[in-house]
Amino acid sequence: MLFVQKFGGSSVGDPERIKRVAERVWRTRQTGKEVVVVVSAMGDTTDDLIALAGEISGEPAAREMDQLLSTGEQVSSALLALALQRLGAEAVSLTGQQAGIFTDGAYGKAAISRIDPVRLREEIAGGKIPVVAGFQGVGPGGDITTLGRGGSDTTAVAVAAGLGADCCEIYTDVDGVYTADPRLVPEASKIPVISYDEMLELASLGAVVLHPRSVELAKMFGVQLIVRSSFNDNPGTIVKGDGGMEKAYMVSGVAHDLNVAKVGLFDVMDQPGIAHRLFAALAAEKVNVDMIIQGATRDGRNDIAFTVSRDDLKKALAVAEGVKETIGAKGYTYDDQVGKVSIVGAGMITRPGVAAAMFEALSTAGVNIEMISTSEIKISCIIKETEVARAVKALHDKFGLAELSDT
Amino acid sequence: MLFVQKFGGSSVGDPERIKRVAERVWRTRQTGKEVVVVVSAMGDTTDDLIALAGEISGEPAAREMDQLLSTGEQVSSALLALALQRLGAEAVSLTGQQAGIFTDGAYGKAAISRIDPVRLREEIAGGKIPVVAGFQGVGPGGDITTLGRGGSDTTAVAVAAGLGADCCEIYTDVDGVYTADPRLVPEASKIPVISYDEMLELASLGAVVLHPRSVELAKMFGVQLIVRSSFNDNPGTIVKGDGGMEKAYMVSGVAHDLNVAKVGLFDVMDQPGIAHRLFAALAAEKVNVDMIIQGATRDGRNDIAFTVSRDDLKKALAVAEGVKETIGAKGYTYDDQVGKVSIVGAGMITRPGVAAAMFEALSTAGVNIEMISTSEIKISCIIKETEVARAVKALHDKFGLAELSDT
Repeated sequence: MLFVQKFGGSSVGDPERIKRVAERVWRTRQTGKEVVVVVSAMGDTTDDLIALAGEISGEPAAREMDQLLSTGEQVSSALLALALQRLGAEAVSLTGQQAGIFTDGAYGKAAISRIDPVRLREEIAGGKIPVVAGFQGVGPGGDITTLGRGGSDTTAVAVAAGLGADCCEIYTDVDGVYTADPRLVPEASKIPVISYDEMLELASLGAVVLHPRSVELAKMFGVQLIVRSSFNDNPGTIVKGDGGMEKAYMVSGVAHDLNVAKVGLFDVMDQPGIAHRLFAALAAEKVNVDMIIQGATRDGRNDIAFTVSRDDLKKALAVAEGVKETIGAKGYTYDDQVGKVSIVGAGMITRPGVAAAMFEALSTAGVNIEMISTSEIKISCIIKETEVARAVKALHDKFGLAELSDT
Repeated sequence: MLFVQKFGGSSVGDPERIKRVAERVWRTRQTGKEVVVVVSAMGDTTDDLIALAGEISGEPAAREMDQLLSTGEQVSSALLALALQRLGAEAVSLTGQQAGIFTDGAYGKAAISRIDPVRLREEIAGGKIPVVAGFQGVGPGGDITTLGRGGSDTTAVAVAAGLGADCCEIYTDVDGVYTADPRLVPEASKIPVISYDEMLELASLGAVVLHPRSVELAKMFGVQLIVRSSFNDNPGTIVKGDGGMEKAYMVSGVAHDLNVAKVGLFDVMDQPGIAHRLFAALAAEKVNVDMIIQGATRDGRNDIAFTVSRDDLKKALAVAEGVKETIGAKGYTYDDQVGKVSIVGAGMITRPGVAAAMFEALSTAGVNIEMISTSEIKISCIIKETEVARAVKALHDKFGLAELSDT
């Protein structure tokens, strides 16, 4: 049995926590399993390094930022290897390059192009526990490249795929994936098993336990994930191909996201190419658009609304101002006091009436729906920010999620 | 013209200092010279990382310490590259591995085995200023290895040798090499030109402006060194093959060292192999012995005294206790309240009476000499710690060193 265990920044935030992580890894190893560890940088290290660069340059080059930031994971991996050795384990820290993680060379947002697991296999065969610096790999020219957001999770899944590991455990500061945010819904329960697709929807809907990118990679290579806490021994949530959930439950979770702003354009011309012009302009400014709604045509004109993250609102409004005339819009408006609430479940595909049940629950709770977007396994509604907590609770009740979990 | 410029930890101690270093490098570049920069870790970074490892493990493995400590120079090189780019320079930070610095693989104390300057040459040809992380290189298996003490100076000299640079400037916090420590001798003057051999003696005698190892390497490859301040534009001290000094001056400098302890063994048997047994035992414990004195034989017995650094005194005494009986010593003693004062000068070789002049000066100053050791270009005396400052002043006067410098 070969396990990949990934520990995030808060799990290795200080020397004491690093020692506790080492004890956990060593316990796993002593059950006879082979273990490869992947670590993030300690606590706020990455932010501290970014601040340091900010003192020197307002627009630091991505290549140099990668040389700089990659040291964070190199430090934590070396320290964890030392902590393992202190327990009597044989351990060896490896940078991304040493671990054979090759990328496409895109500084700051590299994609892993391949894993060459020769050294990892050698170290494992030699009885060692490799401790891999997450978030990084080496580009075609020998330069260090970081993987961008969700990088360490992605490293863990890629290493697990490259080695054909039996399981990739993602240790974090929560017990697993919940049916809703326990801070909003105290009776929220942990989901024991969930499918990749459901996890992808939850991950992209603000339940940020796992980065969607790592879930996609896990799905592609069939790597079984377990999300669990680094602070206790609770079993966590298994993410795998065949959720098991999808037959049993219509809805497996309620997600919410407050980092949402809505932009609306009025009376846009109803002509081919108009939407393209608007969203191409947004893409050119690297604004990630989430939901897009286009209402029914009225008098040859349309209303178009879309949502973006609040960080991107300023850029989105600048784009709206810029394209207003070319798309013939009479004006635009925005609202950054909104939130998104979503239900996710593979069971939806085969069960009609889920959307109706969702809208009923929101209506009963007195929550007004401003925008709706659906996919095969999720339904999202934009509502007032102040009503998000009430909406999440109402939906959690409606779909009986408190009774979901058996743990 | 190709210049290698090396900046130590205090020169890059914070973002403001890094910006000032960048301005200096950029000025050099703008005179039309090609420049390669080598940097140490920022300020106390290395000590901080060592302390962090110390919180985790009492005996951290050298391999992991190298993975850990090498990040310090990676950070400072990336930040300096950013600072150069901000000025409009094209710069690129390089780890030891990226700069083609290959070592013998000895963790914590690696020797550079070769420089493969392909990438450095490419970057220079492309108009870039490479900023190389000092103190590190890659070992045969792809592991990061640090170069131990004097590592960044050694990197700079090795890179200069590998590229056939015209000059290797070592920037530090003093103006150059002085005829004595200016804190003890206010009238001490800067030495404009000094030979490798004299510099080697000074460097190994406690005048730690340059690590002896880098001077040896410079001598081997004929790399001209300039030691100068990173805080002003004074010309510094040139270190090169033919000192020029050796013809003009008997003595070029007075050095002193307070990190000295003396150990004496009484009435050792006067037999072949006795000294070997003692010093082999010390070497086995990795105790570096500096001076060794064996007195005249009396009744078939000898006194043997030697000096070590104060850090090594405890180990040295343990060895003395261990071998006492096998070498037939009646007992041993030690004194850690001593210091070493030395005069250095290539001119000594051809001028008799220098030793006599030294002893006369010390005697006139009322300084008692406890041990004497000589080489072709230096004479060292062990004296009471409390008399070191007086002795240095007396020797500086005696050999007219205040008038030496023309700057």
